[in-house]
Amino acid sequence: MIRIYLDYASLTPVDKRVRKVVKKYETGKYSNPSALYATGVAAKKALEEAQARIAKILHAHPDEIIFTSGGTESNEIILRGVEGRHAVISAIEHSSIIKSAKATRVRVDRDGVVDLEELKKAITPDTVLVSIMMVNNETGSIQPISEIARIVRDAGKRYNTRIFFHTDACQAGYLPLHVEKLGVDMMTLDSNKLYGPRGVGMLYIKRGTMKVRRAGTENVPGIMGFAAALELADEMREKENRRLAELKEFFMSEVKKINPMVIINGSLDKTSPHILNISIPGLDGEFAVLKLDAKGIECSTKSACLRDEDESYVLTAIGSSSRNSLRFSFGRDTTKRQLKKVLKQSIF
Amino acid sequence: MIRIYLDYASLTPVDKRVRKVVKKYETGKYSNPSALYATGVAAKKALEEAQARIAKILHAHPDEIIFTSGGTESNEIILRGVEGRHAVISAIEHSSIIKSAKATRVRVDRDGVVDLEELKKAITPDTVLVSIMMVNNETGSIQPISEIARIVRDAGKRYNTRIFFHTDACQAGYLPLHVEKLGVDMMTLDSNKLYGPRGVGMLYIKRGTMKVRRAGTENVPGIMGFAAALELADEMREKENRRLAELKEFFMSEVKKINPMVIINGSLDKTSPHILNISIPGLDGEFAVLKLDAKGIECSTKSACLRDEDESYVLTAIGSSSRNSLRFSFGRDTTKRQLKKVLKQSIF
Repeated sequence: MIRIYLDYASLTPVDKRVRKVVKKYETGKYSNPSALYATGVAAKKALEEAQARIAKILHAHPDEIIFTSGGTESNEIILRGVEGRHAVISAIEHSSIIKSAKATRVRVDRDGVVDLEELKKAITPDTVLVSIMMVNNETGSIQPISEIARIVRDAGKRYNTRIFFHTDACQAGYLPLHVEKLGVDMMTLDSNKLYGPRGVGMLYIKRGTMKVRRAGTENVPGIMGFAAALELADEMREKENRRLAELKEFFMSEVKKINPMVIINGSLDKTSPHILNISIPGLDGEFAVLKLDAKGIECSTKSACLRDEDESYVLTAIGSSSRNSLRFSFGRDTTKRQLKKVLKQSIF
Repeated sequence: MIRIYLDYASLTPVDKRVRKVVKKYETGKYSNPSALYATGVAAKKALEEAQARIAKILHAHPDEIIFTSGGTESNEIILRGVEGRHAVISAIEHSSIIKSAKATRVRVDRDGVVDLEELKKAITPDTVLVSIMMVNNETGSIQPISEIARIVRDAGKRYNTRIFFHTDACQAGYLPLHVEKLGVDMMTLDSNKLYGPRGVGMLYIKRGTMKVRRAGTENVPGIMGFAAALELADEMREKENRRLAELKEFFMSEVKKINPMVIINGSLDKTSPHILNISIPGLDGEFAVLKLDAKGIECSTKSACLRDEDESYVLTAIGSSSRNSLRFSFGRDTTKRQLKKVLKQSIF
C-alpha cells in the first residue's frame, strides 16, 4: 500500500541531498574536531563552515550557533540555564518547555495566540526568561514574536534587569528566521522538522547573553547534514509556503463543504501553511487515526510527545479538545491528489 | 596522501554495513515511534528490536536499555540522577564524569588501576553512586570491575543502603560486556567508539535502580545503526582482540628497541589491545603529533576532550605527563605495514 504521510509536524523524512552530505562527512577524511591532525582540523573547519552558513540564514554570528542533539535538548539547555529562577512561558509551549514547573504560564486566546496584556503582567522584576514558541506544533498558530520581544525588552528596562527572550522555532520552517528582526536572544531549531538528519538540533544564543558549552564529540556528519537541510528549507521557503498554503486552503474548504460543523483549531490567518488542526463534532480522534491508517493515511490527534497523555493541553488551552480532533500536517511530498483521496474517507 | 589513522580511541569511522542499516531506517517506512499509525508502529518495533538485540549481547533485559545522544550524555544522566548526593569516582574518569564536583576521587596506582583499599575507605554511609570506567581512554588500563562491584555491594550491606555502581564502558569494545558477570547497575556505551553512527549512545540501567526517561523523538536510524555496530563489534571481538594485541605487542617492542628509555603508560597486562600510551623522555608531545601529521600519521597526546587543557589529569594521576607522551590507538583498518611506517619516523 502506498502510504499518504500527513504528519510532517511530527517528523520529516531525511532529504536525499542531505543524506549525501552526511555520507561525505562520515568517511575517514573527517575525524574528531578536537584532534590536532589533518582529518581533525578538516572536521573542525567543517563545523565552523556549518556555523557560518547557518548564521548567514539566521542573520547571526557564527559563534552564536550551538549544536545539540535536537530541539528537546536545546530547550532543556535554556531551561537549565535559568534553573530555580522565574520564567514566563505560554500555556501552549512544547512539552519540553511546559514541564518547567517554576514558570508562569500565560494564557492564549481561542486562536492560540498569546495574550500580550497577560504576558506583560506575568513578567516580574525577578523574571529572567520569557520563552514563547514561534509556531505551535499542534495548531500551526504563529505568535507575534517581535511584539513579544519588544514587551520583554521594555520590561527589562522598567525593572532595570536583563530578561532573556527565547523562542522554540522548531515548527517555524516556513517563516523567515531573521533573529535580529525577530528580536530574540535565543532560538531553538530541530533537524527532524527540516528534512535533516536525526539526532541534530541547534540553539542560537546571542552574544553576551547565556554561556553554553556542550560537552561531547560533535556529530560532524549530522551537523553538516543539518546545515544543508536548513539551506534547502531556506531556498524552498517562499515557493513551498505558497504551495502548502494553497493545499491547506483547498483541504480546509473541502472539509467544510463535507461537514460545515467542522471547527478549525488555531488561527485562520496567523498560521503556518503546514499544519491544519480540525475538530469534528462526535468524532473519536484516536479511532479516526487508526481508521485512516488502515487506508494508508497517516495523521495524528495530537503531538506525538503527548502519546501517554489523555488530552492535548494545547487544544484545552484554546477551549477545544483533542478527543475529537485531527492534525493533518503537510510537507514536500504532499499533493492535491493525496488530499483528494483523504477527503473521500468517511470521517468528516 | 594516504593517511594512517591511529586515533581510534578518539573516534572510529562509521562501518559501511552500519551505514546501510541507518539508510534503511531513514526512509519514509519508519516515522515517529510515538505515532499511532503504521510507519510509527514500525519505528517503535524497530526500537524494541534494537533494545532486545543489545540486551542479548549485554545479558540484560530489553527495558534496561536506554538510548541517548552519546557517551557524554549517558554519563551526565547518571550524574544528574544523584545530584547533590555523595559519589565516588576514580581520578582518571572521563572528563564528563570528572567534572562532577561533589565526588570523592580515588587514586590509581602507576599502572592506572584504582586503589581498591582507598575505594573502600572512600565509600561512606552517604554514598549513593560509585562510577569507575571499565577501560581508560588514555592508557587503555582495565579496571577490576567485578571486584569493585563486590566492594560496592559489601559497603551497601554494611551501611544498609543502596549504592549504585556505574561503569563508563565507552572504551571497552574489546571486552565482554556481560552486565551480570560484571555486577554493574549502570553502564555507558558510545556508538562513536564502536564504528557506529554519530550522535548515538546508550545506558544500561538495571531494573529497580534509577528511573530515567529521556524526552525527545528517538533517533531510530541512528539507534538501529548502533545496534548493528554493537553486534558487529561483539562478533569480531575475539578475533580483533587477538589481532590488535599482536599489533600492539609488536609496536611496543619495536619502539623499545629503538629507544629503551621509552615508558609505557598504564598497565602492561591489564590493558585493552587498542590503546598504547608511551612517554618519550625529552619529547614535545604536541610537536610530535604535528610532525607525524605532516607525514600522514594521526595520533594524539591526550584525550581530544582535554584539548583546551595543558596537561592530561590521567597521566598526572599515574605519575606521568602528557607533555612528552603519545597515544596510539588501533582499530579495524590498522595493519602491521602501517605500524612499520610509523616506526620509521624520527620521533622515538
